[in-house]
Amino acid sequence: MQKYFISHENLEALVIDGDDAFHITKVMRSKIGDKILVSDQNKTYLASIKSLDFNKVTFEIIDEKTGNMELPVFVSIFQGYPKGEKLDDIIKHGTELGVYEFYPTLMKRSVFKLEEKKKESKLVRFNKIAKEASEQSYRTYIPKVVDIIELKKIDFSKFDYKIYCYEESAKEFEKSNFKNIISNLKPNDKVAIVIGPEGGIDSSEVEYLNKLGFIPCGLGPRILRTETAVFYCMSAISYEMELLK
Amino acid sequence: MQKYFISHENLEALVIDGDDAFHITKVMRSKIGDKILVSDQNKTYLASIKSLDFNKVTFEIIDEKTGNMELPVFVSIFQGYPKGEKLDDIIKHGTELGVYEFYPTLMKRSVFKLEEKKKESKLVRFNKIAKEASEQSYRTYIPKVVDIIELKKIDFSKFDYKIYCYEESAKEFEKSNFKNIISNLKPNDKVAIVIGPEGGIDSSEVEYLNKLGFIPCGLGPRILRTETAVFYCMSAISYEMELLK
Repeated sequence: MQKYFISHENLEALVIDGDDAFHITKVMRSKIGDKILVSDQNKTYLASIKSLDFNKVTFEIIDEKTGNMELPVFVSIFQGYPKGEKLDDIIKHGTELGVYEFYPTLMKRSVFKLEEKKKESKLVRFNKIAKEASEQSYRTYIPKVVDIIELKKIDFSKFDYKIYCYEESAKEFEKSNFKNIISNLKPNDKVAIVIGPEGGIDSSEVEYLNKLGFIPCGLGPRILRTETAVFYCMSAISYEMELLK
Repeated sequence: MQKYFISHENLEALVIDGDDAFHITKVMRSKIGDKILVSDQNKTYLASIKSLDFNKVTFEIIDEKTGNMELPVFVSIFQGYPKGEKLDDIIKHGTELGVYEFYPTLMKRSVFKLEEKKKESKLVRFNKIAKEASEQSYRTYIPKVVDIIELKKIDFSKFDYKIYCYEESAKEFEKSNFKNIISNLKPNDKVAIVIGPEGGIDSSEVEYLNKLGFIPCGLGPRILRTETAVFYCMSAISYEMELLK
């Protein structure tokens, strides 16, 4: 069943408009009576379509959906800006896996050079990917792609735990820092995870992060690509906190 | 440092030929004296390049590399054949995460139709992706993409544990089967994981798998895309078995 995030006002008015109305009528080719999920990022309802127009769909609420879909901790991903379209996949799959917010981060070894005038349109695009992935994965909350920012301009003061994924740690078979931290997380903890771009984290950045109290973590003995590291971290946090023995 | 898998004979003869020699000379533009890793999938050595030609590179061994890079269990992924190029990413990232072997599996809801005459060339391509991902991630072993096969033609008798990732389990908040199994794995256990294609596992297939003793598993409350499910499973197994508290 397709889920749609709508504004609180539209939820009160039982109306879907804009791109989502187009999606329901033209892409999904829904019919009157078809069931959808609607959410204002606070509550989620099972709803039935009452009327269809390509720019306005109305619905009635059948039932409230309960059940927590969100990770019990807030994970912020500071992803070294990678090459090509990799960030699309990182945001898409990271959203499915429960990321709270993303900061595409400009680091020493990022090949990507930000043109300031393109920043807004990039952020709009990334946030659209996050919205669609949230709908697909039935999340309650849409993660924000907050800003494209230089590593040294980020304020990390709000975090309870700060880690960075470090290839050199993996090479030295460092295998306890990540699990030590993740297995001790408590609900509502705020976790910052820094992941380098393709070339890894530069030594001056490592020094900077260490000074800020970041912990270097190996993610097993194999060397992971930058996009795989975020999948590993998020999957492990879900496995640790959301699954039961 | 780049790793190259070569034949046992070439390792004895201290020679690299074929595509890898081309890669060293033309893609990496290596120089005499540059360091590489060479492996015959049994032992891995740090080596130094002695001579360079685009179809033949010779090297001398400096040191043996020890350290286990492989997951302590054998995980076979039976991946419902997905749309487009998704299988490339599943093989690439699955290899980094330690998959032992892949079977692209034709299931009821696979949109892909196999043309028998294209099967061999597809397998060659998939195995090339697995080799390159193994080199990049410093694995000791190259996982095999064994066959493109119909679900009901697979012999699952060798496995110690058999699970399938089930969207309906996630929707019902089933959260203990996966962790129960993964946290009880012992070294050298053989694990079969079936993952449906985009539309999920058909009810007749669920019945079939249940009869064979497969356990349905939810992977947390959010609904994962087919390609994300394999990343989740493999990351969780690594986290459980390779990292220490």
